[in-house]
Amino acid sequence: MADEKFPEIQGGGSLILAWQVRNKKVLVVGGGEVAAGRILNLLNADAKVILISPRDGLNPEVAYRIERGQVTYHDKLFEPSDLDDPAITMVMTAVDDPEASTRIWKLCKEKRIAANIADVPPECDFYFGSVHRDGPLQIMVSTNGNGPKMANIVRRRIAATLPPNIGEAIAKVGALRKKLRVLAPGDEQGPKRMKWYVLSRKLA
Amino acid sequence: MADEKFPEIQGGGSLILAWQVRNKKVLVVGGGEVAAGRILNLLNADAKVILISPRDGLNPEVAYRIERGQVTYHDKLFEPSDLDDPAITMVMTAVDDPEASTRIWKLCKEKRIAANIADVPPECDFYFGSVHRDGPLQIMVSTNGNGPKMANIVRRRIAATLPPNIGEAIAKVGALRKKLRVLAPGDEQGPKRMKWYVLSRKLA
Repeated sequence: MADEKFPEIQGGGSLILAWQVRNKKVLVVGGGEVAAGRILNLLNADAKVILISPRDGLNPEVAYRIERGQVTYHDKLFEPSDLDDPAITMVMTAVDDPEASTRIWKLCKEKRIAANIADVPPECDFYFGSVHRDGPLQIMVSTNGNGPKMANIVRRRIAATLPPNIGEAIAKVGALRKKLRVLAPGDEQGPKRMKWYVLSRKLA
Repeated sequence: MADEKFPEIQGGGSLILAWQVRNKKVLVVGGGEVAAGRILNLLNADAKVILISPRDGLNPEVAYRIERGQVTYHDKLFEPSDLDDPAITMVMTAVDDPEASTRIWKLCKEKRIAANIADVPPECDFYFGSVHRDGPLQIMVSTNGNGPKMANIVRRRIAATLPPNIGEAIAKVGALRKKLRVLAPGDEQGPKRMKWYVLSRKLA
């Protein structure tokens, strides 16, 4: 049967995507421990982080990021006009005020800005997972809400079984691909094609 | 030094997110092999896929999805009015027409709709990675553009080293957490707390 050639739909998963936030403005509302984690994720992806939170009760890591000038900081409570900048591509809130959170979520949806309201799954366009990072390599583990601690365990297990130099190796492959792109611009090279080029360079 | 307590920023990564597209409309433009992959990802995440592509030259897997009613299909070329439905949350194009693609990208940006234009990295809000799936567990490998084939190798390696029953185990943890949430509603239970409840049930 022709039908059996194609994968069956599993359902129940997420669409896991590598979001490109380099030099894009992302608004973080809140300055606690959860916000600190969000900010770290964002800075590791080269986002321009705009942080809105009263200075009172700032998490030490968040305060450290502010001191170092790693985020653009506004010592204030959130106001709807904070979403007026059309360059804001994403909003993440982590505040202990469900009503304020819901208000922010609704404003984001009106403006079609992707948002994550911490601890309120129905008010999230996206969830976070447990991420292992080694240079250009990123591995994200999601249990789709079944067990965040399990995600951490699986992530640590994966990290322990990977060759220690894998990130470096991938960076080298990337550099090689870049060189090949210069040699053969416009060419979408698969491994066969790459081998051919490498060989032809060696023989030349 | 207090500074050393906090992780250094690595930069150059992506923000890897588990996007929630369940019952949300996602527009796919194009009906080739790349579109087939996009559609499978979307259906596995329970999205409502709207597919726009002339019937001529449809990939067999795409044709199979249409036949089975797994996508809402429009046998036509893309028109700007296809983006008018405010319920469309995401757009993915995979067509062999760079000019048409760029036009779609610009329209999406005007409307603040997240988009991925296949093979045009600067016209992508997000990239895909290599994903391993086992029930509720999803593991996504990204090399941040350094080597898609390497991502596949790493993903297969990870899949081979995971315990074969890990997906099932995570589903069981999820079911247990759900039960505990009924026993202790509103409680964000960590493992200690969970142990306590399990123990108290056993003793009761």
